[in-house]
Amino acid sequence: MSKLLIVGTVAFDAIETPFGKTDKILGGAATYISLAASQFDVQSGIVSVVGGDFPKSFLQNLNDRNIDTSGIEIIEEGKTFFWSGKYHNDLNSRDTLITELNVLADFQPKVPDNFKDTDFLMLGNLHPGVQMSVIEQISIRPKLVVLDTMNFWMDNSLDELLEVIAKVDVITINDEEARQLSGEYSLVKAAKVIHKMGPKYVVIKKGEHGALLFHNGNVFFAPALPLEEVFDPTGAGDTFAGGFIGFLASTQDISFENMKRAVISGSNLASFCVEKFGTERMVNLTNVEIKDRLKQFKELTQFDIELS
Amino acid sequence: MSKLLIVGTVAFDAIETPFGKTDKILGGAATYISLAASQFDVQSGIVSVVGGDFPKSFLQNLNDRNIDTSGIEIIEEGKTFFWSGKYHNDLNSRDTLITELNVLADFQPKVPDNFKDTDFLMLGNLHPGVQMSVIEQISIRPKLVVLDTMNFWMDNSLDELLEVIAKVDVITINDEEARQLSGEYSLVKAAKVIHKMGPKYVVIKKGEHGALLFHNGNVFFAPALPLEEVFDPTGAGDTFAGGFIGFLASTQDISFENMKRAVISGSNLASFCVEKFGTERMVNLTNVEIKDRLKQFKELTQFDIELS
Repeated sequence: MSKLLIVGTVAFDAIETPFGKTDKILGGAATYISLAASQFDVQSGIVSVVGGDFPKSFLQNLNDRNIDTSGIEIIEEGKTFFWSGKYHNDLNSRDTLITELNVLADFQPKVPDNFKDTDFLMLGNLHPGVQMSVIEQISIRPKLVVLDTMNFWMDNSLDELLEVIAKVDVITINDEEARQLSGEYSLVKAAKVIHKMGPKYVVIKKGEHGALLFHNGNVFFAPALPLEEVFDPTGAGDTFAGGFIGFLASTQDISFENMKRAVISGSNLASFCVEKFGTERMVNLTNVEIKDRLKQFKELTQFDIELS
Repeated sequence: MSKLLIVGTVAFDAIETPFGKTDKILGGAATYISLAASQFDVQSGIVSVVGGDFPKSFLQNLNDRNIDTSGIEIIEEGKTFFWSGKYHNDLNSRDTLITELNVLADFQPKVPDNFKDTDFLMLGNLHPGVQMSVIEQISIRPKLVVLDTMNFWMDNSLDELLEVIAKVDVITINDEEARQLSGEYSLVKAAKVIHKMGPKYVVIKKGEHGALLFHNGNVFFAPALPLEEVFDPTGAGDTFAGGFIGFLASTQDISFENMKRAVISGSNLASFCVEKFGTERMVNLTNVEIKDRLKQFKELTQFDIELS
């Protein structure tokens, strides 16, 4: 079984959407990534940090899903990272109301010994300095390193971010971030520029408009499943990334053909994530539901046309 | 061979994009629809109106592509419909600079006798009263009636538009128009509402984000081909519609499975249309290019994932 190490935030979120609002609930990139990856046959572990206010039961819930949380440092006298946001009516944009870095401010990641030989490494969205520190603690180059990041780091830590980008195999960013990073409006041109920065594979996430996978002049597109209702988009991008790398780690096949399936798997899981607040849908998700929805993805996209 | 009757504007356009601008060039919904449909084995004809200023050579060019223009009335003392627009930098939005209805203002469509038994009817975007008049002149119910329309008619002639919508099999509109027509933000819900207005098939065009085909709770998605450069989006929606109905008319198969292929065919042709100003790319398009790009659509969307 492949090892999958995930670095990212484990956090409290308070979310407001047109459909309701939550108090502090479990959130964070590493949480969503690991929950998505736990749908696959992998041995995954998280590197992160929380405060003394973080319920042990939340960690236990992750452990119950075979997620190793020994790399989550607990700073008893500190407080867990907290983010609060409010989505606009179209759910495509949001305002950040509160960002309290708390224990994340001085986070020095420590990779547990049993994950220093991880086969797959997922660098979830956080400070590129933390991502680089994790890369440097891995003793053998993993089979695949996937990076997720966002515009905040392009604005504030571009040089450090570019050093991380140079070291990864796959980058996943959204369309606006791809444009910002590359200086190109066309996503095809943007992917070419980003390829030159290092990643052999560029995944551009377009939210409700799906995701594009670029590699060596080849391109694959996975739509988002058209849903009657999107309830809360929080964590959809992280869930996509977790499904993507979880699928690859479990199949131990990093060919382009298999990456297509991984992109579909990520889109599939993300389509569940948005149906409820926070992680609620992801922790109540059955294998039958996942397979049924994969069938819907096939029906949505597959056609048979004569090329002769 | 199926007969395909197309009603819509034949016009002069003057277009400005970030890449340049044109003087008055050939444009109009029926022009783009018929050029796209002429890629298929169909006997097509146009019902429209132009002024005495419209070059005979333009009509001859359509005739050379086996498009019957005897239903294009020429009002010698009148002027041809003229539209001028300027696209914004992202090419996703535009300002209309000039709209001169001219001969279109009092247009009374006359369906030529040889098309009163048309097998397929394409109602291109223009006044719903004109669309209804054409429907009423067809003696035998066509196998398939496809309607394209836009927000302008929803704003100004909603009652007449709803009467036309009630009589068609397929409606093609863009995402914002689907939301306006249905009052639903979710496109899945919007399609359900529009189904109840009459059309058994609802095609929602999302421009660079592809197109969705809804029917009886089934949904199919065709992406737009990711292009390095979009030069001029004018006519892309009409070209999509022309490719859609041209494919159906030539194959004489209006099953849902074949409509999937038709949506792909429409997207394929639209991907060429935007590569040059106006109709330039569409009149210089080879069958080999079309087939090659269909292969790209397959590579872009087809995947093979185990569902067991």
